[in-house]
Amino acid sequence: MPFEKSEYSVTNTAPQPKTQPSLDSLVNLVDGDMKRVNQVIIDNMHSEVALIPQLATHLVAAGGKRMRPMLTLASARLCGYGDGPHAVDLAACVEFIHTATLLHDDVVDESQLRRGQASANALFGNEASVLVGDFLFARAFVVMVKTGSLRVLDILAQASAVIAEGEVLQLSTANDMGTSEEAYLEVITAKTAALFGAASQIGAVIAERSAEDEEALRLYGIYLGTAFQLIDDVLDYSAHQATLGKTVGDDFRDGKVTLPVIIAYANGDEDEKAFWRRCMEDQDFQDGDLDRAQTLIRKYDALDASMDRAREFGEKAIATLSRFDDGAIKDAMVEAVEFCISRPY
Amino acid sequence: MPFEKSEYSVTNTAPQPKTQPSLDSLVNLVDGDMKRVNQVIIDNMHSEVALIPQLATHLVAAGGKRMRPMLTLASARLCGYGDGPHAVDLAACVEFIHTATLLHDDVVDESQLRRGQASANALFGNEASVLVGDFLFARAFVVMVKTGSLRVLDILAQASAVIAEGEVLQLSTANDMGTSEEAYLEVITAKTAALFGAASQIGAVIAERSAEDEEALRLYGIYLGTAFQLIDDVLDYSAHQATLGKTVGDDFRDGKVTLPVIIAYANGDEDEKAFWRRCMEDQDFQDGDLDRAQTLIRKYDALDASMDRAREFGEKAIATLSRFDDGAIKDAMVEAVEFCISRPY
Repeated sequence: MPFEKSEYSVTNTAPQPKTQPSLDSLVNLVDGDMKRVNQVIIDNMHSEVALIPQLATHLVAAGGKRMRPMLTLASARLCGYGDGPHAVDLAACVEFIHTATLLHDDVVDESQLRRGQASANALFGNEASVLVGDFLFARAFVVMVKTGSLRVLDILAQASAVIAEGEVLQLSTANDMGTSEEAYLEVITAKTAALFGAASQIGAVIAERSAEDEEALRLYGIYLGTAFQLIDDVLDYSAHQATLGKTVGDDFRDGKVTLPVIIAYANGDEDEKAFWRRCMEDQDFQDGDLDRAQTLIRKYDALDASMDRAREFGEKAIATLSRFDDGAIKDAMVEAVEFCISRPY
Repeated sequence: MPFEKSEYSVTNTAPQPKTQPSLDSLVNLVDGDMKRVNQVIIDNMHSEVALIPQLATHLVAAGGKRMRPMLTLASARLCGYGDGPHAVDLAACVEFIHTATLLHDDVVDESQLRRGQASANALFGNEASVLVGDFLFARAFVVMVKTGSLRVLDILAQASAVIAEGEVLQLSTANDMGTSEEAYLEVITAKTAALFGAASQIGAVIAERSAEDEEALRLYGIYLGTAFQLIDDVLDYSAHQATLGKTVGDDFRDGKVTLPVIIAYANGDEDEKAFWRRCMEDQDFQDGDLDRAQTLIRKYDALDASMDRAREFGEKAIATLSRFDDGAIKDAMVEAVEFCISRPY
């Protein structure tokens, strides 16, 4: 259990909830709406071409935390939108965009597992994953158009372009041990936080709130998404992370230069730096390399340091909510931040 | 020159232009607008992430016929839209969507050549091709939103979903010698004709013409696109098709069941049928197989028969234009159909 300290130390310094933070409050608050979101997803995954609903059903069955659509529902509710007609449809659009990027990511990464199941590309082939991703992305825009808000279309189209830019930037920084923390943060802001930001912002847009409220919720999502991805990258080196349902050490084997690696590399001696370059840049692996990587990351407290950064972003996310009325939905959005930081999966 | 008859016989039966039909009239009529389309494309391919403009510049430099954006410009002009503000932007969107699908197609097909140059996936890798395709697709929607027409957004989003469906359906019919002509036409209508149809239709939409005019131009594009793809599939078995700038016999090696193959198979004896199944279904190739495929296709006049089908669709495309005023732009749109059928590349 080499990372036990890192994984559980978070509850000693983060804002202290009475129990381990969870998503349950948020899930319970938006439960009825999320059932409708699932129905919109299923309805719009329909196609005469049998392979599309087959592959899509595989994805829906695999589940996931559904963080992003819940953010749209929660934001809309925080803004008093209540049972307005568009929140559910737009939450489904956000999940469609996310699912499309997951499908394409798995092709790019050649992943064999996603959420603990065989990934779509492993099961259906890269071709189908690319094309069904395109289908879901296009359908997301079809559903968005139905809501009639050009502003929402603009926000989600822009976010989609930024996500792709972030993924390309990640390709450019992969296998490059010269990647700075700044460049890493730029990658995760684009590839992950942008959609969290857009998902949260559009809740305020459909509720027709002020530009300041919109911006506050956009930042809530951006900061939360950044913290979320930082923890994702920590979990990739955690001995417990098999619970994530991903292959252990994916980022290491792919040569993705994430913050734990950047910190361990910056603090390493010449011999250690050569090790990181051999693995990450040359992709020349030997038996025991992942163990050694984990040992070096532990040696320099790189997971704790990464979690500290996540905690900072989490605190900024919570601070953006100060302008909104107190209540159950705001409490749940705060706890969602705390969950993202302390989550073991 | 095994397919000389097939390739040149078209001018004996198609509507007889005075000279070999070309795209020149259309190109000349929309030349000024196409320069502006290119500028919109270049402007919107911009990204701080250097790999994106690098790959995009490679695509722009590779050129292509730019049929689809010209259709939007021509349709708008036919509908009297003239120098309205949105035709150029929307033509660029159409080309963006097309380019995104080409990038993803090349990944799916593992093509090494595109328009006579090394394909983007061969040069930059599959990952970059998937992601830059996503980027271009998202940017297309960003530009569309600026034109403010939800109806155009709807048409192009729906078309994008249909294209992806067509590509998935093509995957399902690949390597299946049981594919009928009907199933083949369904594939090419979705993967190719849908965007031709949408590109033409949106010209009428921004010109605010009647639903009947819109539908006529949509059908013009659908029929033209179907003819265009039929000829594309004929050219893949033509001895001259190295001028296409594609690898010779791509469809054969990929096991894509196109109309020439369907016709040769339907007419073949048991030995010939076994040959097609070995190649297309089992993907078990021997030296000389492409030559034998071409010989069998010639034996049953399958290219001529396919071109007859293309000609039928071309005639239907031209007929849709009867409701519009005569003039230079209509003449150019008629000649564009004739070019698509008789084109040697």
